[in-house]
Amino acid sequence: MSERLVIIGGDAAGMSAASQARRLRTAGELEIVVFERSGFTSFSACGIPYWVGGDVLERDALIARTPQEHRAREIDLRMRTEVVEIDIPGARVRARDLASGAESWTSYDKLVIATGARPIRPEMPGIDAPGVHGVQTLDDGQALLETLDRTEGKRAVVVGAGYIGVEMAEALIQRGYDVTMVNRGPEPMSTLDPDMGALVREAMSGMGIRVIGDAPVTELRTGADGRVRAVVTAAAEYEADVVVLGIGVHPETALARAAGLPLGTHGGLLTDLAMRVRGHDNIWAGGDCVEVLDLVSGRERYIPLGTHANKHGQIIGSGVGGGYATFPGVVGTAVSKVCDVEVARTGLREKDAQAVGLQYVTVTIESTSRSGYYPGAAPMTVKMLAERRTGRLLGVQIVGREGAGKRVDIAAVALTARMTVEQMTALDLGYAPPFSPVWDPVLVAARKAVTAVHRRG
Amino acid sequence: MSERLVIIGGDAAGMSAASQARRLRTAGELEIVVFERSGFTSFSACGIPYWVGGDVLERDALIARTPQEHRAREIDLRMRTEVVEIDIPGARVRARDLASGAESWTSYDKLVIATGARPIRPEMPGIDAPGVHGVQTLDDGQALLETLDRTEGKRAVVVGAGYIGVEMAEALIQRGYDVTMVNRGPEPMSTLDPDMGALVREAMSGMGIRVIGDAPVTELRTGADGRVRAVVTAAAEYEADVVVLGIGVHPETALARAAGLPLGTHGGLLTDLAMRVRGHDNIWAGGDCVEVLDLVSGRERYIPLGTHANKHGQIIGSGVGGGYATFPGVVGTAVSKVCDVEVARTGLREKDAQAVGLQYVTVTIESTSRSGYYPGAAPMTVKMLAERRTGRLLGVQIVGREGAGKRVDIAAVALTARMTVEQMTALDLGYAPPFSPVWDPVLVAARKAVTAVHRRG
Repeated sequence: MSERLVIIGGDAAGMSAASQARRLRTAGELEIVVFERSGFTSFSACGIPYWVGGDVLERDALIARTPQEHRAREIDLRMRTEVVEIDIPGARVRARDLASGAESWTSYDKLVIATGARPIRPEMPGIDAPGVHGVQTLDDGQALLETLDRTEGKRAVVVGAGYIGVEMAEALIQRGYDVTMVNRGPEPMSTLDPDMGALVREAMSGMGIRVIGDAPVTELRTGADGRVRAVVTAAAEYEADVVVLGIGVHPETALARAAGLPLGTHGGLLTDLAMRVRGHDNIWAGGDCVEVLDLVSGRERYIPLGTHANKHGQIIGSGVGGGYATFPGVVGTAVSKVCDVEVARTGLREKDAQAVGLQYVTVTIESTSRSGYYPGAAPMTVKMLAERRTGRLLGVQIVGREGAGKRVDIAAVALTARMTVEQMTALDLGYAPPFSPVWDPVLVAARKAVTAVHRRG
Repeated sequence: MSERLVIIGGDAAGMSAASQARRLRTAGELEIVVFERSGFTSFSACGIPYWVGGDVLERDALIARTPQEHRAREIDLRMRTEVVEIDIPGARVRARDLASGAESWTSYDKLVIATGARPIRPEMPGIDAPGVHGVQTLDDGQALLETLDRTEGKRAVVVGAGYIGVEMAEALIQRGYDVTMVNRGPEPMSTLDPDMGALVREAMSGMGIRVIGDAPVTELRTGADGRVRAVVTAAAEYEADVVVLGIGVHPETALARAAGLPLGTHGGLLTDLAMRVRGHDNIWAGGDCVEVLDLVSGRERYIPLGTHANKHGQIIGSGVGGGYATFPGVVGTAVSKVCDVEVARTGLREKDAQAVGLQYVTVTIESTSRSGYYPGAAPMTVKMLAERRTGRLLGVQIVGREGAGKRVDIAAVALTARMTVEQMTALDLGYAPPFSPVWDPVLVAARKAVTAVHRRG
């Protein structure tokens, strides 16, 4: 007897779940119905800045798998169809065809919620004016590109200085814009401590990007034609021909909330280790609509990121298909770049450690990506946090040039293994002059952290 | 009352030990005498191929610290002075001034043996002919450069296809030579399994390097002028205007052997975790003259590598100076490149696993260094070994282009932490399109390895 799996959301988490479930169960065993409200499946939102910037030439390059490809694998994919209600006692969902407005109920044996995130759009005058763009969906990217093509002026203001903000600043610089980045916090990249964020600001300033900190936006001023023409903060006004919002996203959990499913402090769904919604054996959730366990702090966090969504989908698909896999949690790794500056972080910032009662020492070192004598050796700053007394690694932040960013993976694995900084000093990392100094920068930081832990007592 | 520390050998391990000991103990507390038979201290042997190839312009760039710099830190450094005997019952060493031939005894309270390695020079006709060069010391590098400057012909033969061999092949290609690499084994880079070595051979062939496998050299033929003119194997003869020996090195332990100190099966000194020579509380040894514990196989291995020598020196200096540090062992990580091909390995090859009774599965995957749609995404092959039944990671080998090599660090840390491939699939690695596909290639391999472990049972 066939079961029916209903999946709400056809992007990374949802379609990975569908694909993995289909690998484990035939269409005769498991019917898979996916509802997707947009016109796209399985696209790389992370790639949008590079498409806007011109590094990626075609929108379709960002689509990992088309609806047709999914359907060829016997997945009943209903595009431009939005689920508007989950009826948990009835084990069914109500979906609306966005073209016709027609609604119908579909029952499920198993349900996957992969509704993703929605961009934060603060309520303020001008927020919906022409020339103001988010960059979360392919449609957003297309609309921004059309604006860039049409607009004569070359002044762009990016609101927000997180990953998306700095990546969009790079994209707009590449397109020849005069770019101002306006940020609520003191320094860009609030996922770093401010001392490391300051290095990003300095580097961006060196690229000609104007970086304005401590500047919450109060208004987007429009011209007589209704189009945006300036971004206004308490202290100043920045003229703009185009405004890009890179403020971040919230979990899209309105449906889940209405259905009474458990949400965490960040508004994301709460799941167990097998990605089942807590208290519901036949409902899974994953991707940008869930909270994840931070293995370092022991707290739930909200980290919308494609790589997590793909893992979630894989694990959900295994569980739905009768296999077994778990998502133990994250350590909070992220890497990004703005032009030739690479920025990476993993684990806890100082304020994260303080918030959970961890006492720590911090060290910051300067090193290079290769042996100092090897061509292309580029400077790199590594900040490391270690727990007081135990010396357990708590976090690493890196700002540098080519070769800096992915070094954070060393720390990500060490955090997962709960290594101490003393254990890290003995790590057998790849060394050759074109790849690393004889002491890898991460080891230099670990050595200094050992000394700091001992000194602090 | 002052103690005297005697160090035999003034390169990476010896001078790191001296420096660290000096940090912990003043000259009034600890006299430090270092004997070095060459004219250099603390140089990067790993950098010689890049100096020969022209990437590094000056010999002195490879010298991390000169004798004068060491002496300024109150280290009594005796250059061109060779220790010719260790008298352990008498706690003294006999040293010879190589210029005058004068010999004298120096007593010690603590002794560090850091005698390094000597290049393998197989006994065969022509091995000492002009035009035949090793590349272990700065003098070797200088001599080779002088030969290259003087020699009109442009045919170079590299004997040996390990790290030094392939790096020298790159250096000679960069200098415009027609390069043939002649190798005893079937494929280059015997630190990889042959299937991965074959990828290196294919890449090198694509660069115009002639790679000859299964070809032990029987003779170096000389011309009427006494200079080398061909490399002879059982099957063929390869004309050569210059021959570079990249065959590898042996531990330089003749002194230690004569003194009755314990040596392992590879001829290296055996130490405890604090790098003290086994059975001798006041004698330490480190660098290219010792064997190290392989944490994956549980066996001693011989891995001459500057990064280990530096760690050893640091640990020895701590112990000598009254501090405490240990060297727990290695996982066998190495990274190299030949032109734009990056080669890395860590842990066990198939034959290493077999030799210690470990049963395993292997998987090999193809992926890219960046998201497929991002410019510069380069192909990469990752081979992974996991233990049968337990799924413990046993080893990783990577051959690819830019961005491939240092990914081996992920596996190096995972090996150190004794992770299973299933645990690895959940690793929170840095993801952004310019840095990685949404599943990092190492994770793609880990996922496939999980399936292989389950299938094998």
